[in-house]
Amino acid sequence: MTILITGVAGFIGPNLARQFLDQGKTVIGLDNLSRGSLSNIADLQSNPAFTFFEIELSNLSSYEQCVSSFLQKFPKGILEVWHMAANSDIPAGIDDAAIDLRDTFMTTFNTLEVMKKYRIPVMAFASTSAVYGDLGDTLLTEDIGPLFPISNYGAMKLASEALISASVESFLEKAYIYRFPNVIGTPATHGVILDFIHKLQKTPKNLEVLGNGSQRKGYLHVQDLIDAMLAIQKLAQEPVNYFNIGAGDEGIHVRDIAQIVVDTVSPGAAIAFGEGDKGWVGDVPRFQYSIEKLKKLGWSPKHDSAQAVRLAVKQILAEQSR
Amino acid sequence: MTILITGVAGFIGPNLARQFLDQGKTVIGLDNLSRGSLSNIADLQSNPAFTFFEIELSNLSSYEQCVSSFLQKFPKGILEVWHMAANSDIPAGIDDAAIDLRDTFMTTFNTLEVMKKYRIPVMAFASTSAVYGDLGDTLLTEDIGPLFPISNYGAMKLASEALISASVESFLEKAYIYRFPNVIGTPATHGVILDFIHKLQKTPKNLEVLGNGSQRKGYLHVQDLIDAMLAIQKLAQEPVNYFNIGAGDEGIHVRDIAQIVVDTVSPGAAIAFGEGDKGWVGDVPRFQYSIEKLKKLGWSPKHDSAQAVRLAVKQILAEQSR
Repeated sequence: MTILITGVAGFIGPNLARQFLDQGKTVIGLDNLSRGSLSNIADLQSNPAFTFFEIELSNLSSYEQCVSSFLQKFPKGILEVWHMAANSDIPAGIDDAAIDLRDTFMTTFNTLEVMKKYRIPVMAFASTSAVYGDLGDTLLTEDIGPLFPISNYGAMKLASEALISASVESFLEKAYIYRFPNVIGTPATHGVILDFIHKLQKTPKNLEVLGNGSQRKGYLHVQDLIDAMLAIQKLAQEPVNYFNIGAGDEGIHVRDIAQIVVDTVSPGAAIAFGEGDKGWVGDVPRFQYSIEKLKKLGWSPKHDSAQAVRLAVKQILAEQSR
Repeated sequence: MTILITGVAGFIGPNLARQFLDQGKTVIGLDNLSRGSLSNIADLQSNPAFTFFEIELSNLSSYEQCVSSFLQKFPKGILEVWHMAANSDIPAGIDDAAIDLRDTFMTTFNTLEVMKKYRIPVMAFASTSAVYGDLGDTLLTEDIGPLFPISNYGAMKLASEALISASVESFLEKAYIYRFPNVIGTPATHGVILDFIHKLQKTPKNLEVLGNGSQRKGYLHVQDLIDAMLAIQKLAQEPVNYFNIGAGDEGIHVRDIAQIVVDTVSPGAAIAFGEGDKGWVGDVPRFQYSIEKLKKLGWSPKHDSAQAVRLAVKQILAEQSR
């Protein structure tokens, strides 16, 4: 059984690839290495069941060529695409909409074109809580509306979901739409924890935080995320399966994340907060993310948000010292 | 006050332009004339307050150049964009996803880029009931979810909505998202009534209908649509204003539309039905479209679905004989 993973050299991709290879599957991994890095998949490259292609997914003809060349060698075909490739820098995508158009949306558009052409039946897609926009204190269940994202990233993820659901109506057999929360762990490529660590490593005596620290978000450890996605794929059998994935708790305040990082990296450093409850335009300050649908399916996370943050900080520091 | 209308030579565009010109506004109209036609705006071309540019909206640099050249002549700027341009052939867009990508989505993407660059503050957007996908018998209120369109057209309209809401968060002042039902009237460019008329004009003795005729949809006359959009713009003052627009009735069955067209065009012709309750892949067979939000705002349609169909058939025939 062959699985194609896009964005394989990013954050989620290497964890997924490792999991599938451990299960004895063949993995073809694609990445344009713009935000991903070969070092993230260094340990996989020696595995004969893993093939990596550096490729620009927003270019349809090179994408098709790449998959076609792979299929000539492995004529049994590809069963699933796990489409993880996307822009991960939300503020950059707000400044320049072309970034999320190309990296978050056109990668999905082209993946679906490739799946149609080469008859790959199952799509597993990394969507996001950002599709919900800012619904204030409303509990975010999967069927809530309206869906008005406040970042181009969220908009282009919702656009991707929409195109996937239309594709299920016309040629795809099944789709899994996983709405990710903030996911943390290694290999760390971006995000608030890594930012704080980098800042403290530059200026060990103080940490500047965007916003007043009152933002509260749920954080999920990447290993819990992988577990959840595999559980969903095993248990959910609708044509379009869509689930929030999260720690299911009320989340952790940014000020507490800052404190955990300070305590671990540079004990005693002063924390200076900014103003407002948004870190940047398009940032959703707090939300209640329901994972009841996922729990009913029979899955629960192993770590709550605070435990995930503590574990991720340790793992990122260990990764740096390697 | 200057208003820019995209898709000005299509179906809704000419009706809108006429309305704004009657109100004494200046109108700049854009169209690539792929599905629109100069004959639809022939009566407007002599109006000095109307300027038409033939332009490919999916090409950002020509779009920018066009707006920039206009602004050099009219330095007071443009206050609103009414973005009506889109693919109108839903089945064609399902066969080839590139059509709705280019004509339904990239036209919106580029319109927003132009609005950002030239600081045009207000976006009025032709969205669609197709963003709701097929939710069965669920009453379609504006805040319903999940939003899983079943056509690429619906998907790219939802993608457009999402990008507009993200733009309001970052640079747009206000947006009006009008979710259109099936709209009928003149100038007729596409749709079931025109199809039936054309078929009967070719073979006056029989009319072949796709599907079993049990599809039931609400139809709104274009003049009611224009009235509704203007009423909403006058009365709704949120940053993102989104409304279903429709006749508010239970709609009319396709078999009854067929009968009305037969009675008017070729009395006594036999009607032959196909199979299934969908006319094509991506067609939503029936839905309950709520316009309560719009009614609460104080607006009601003048024609129900059956009245709108009868009126449109007469107008289309009159248009043909001109």
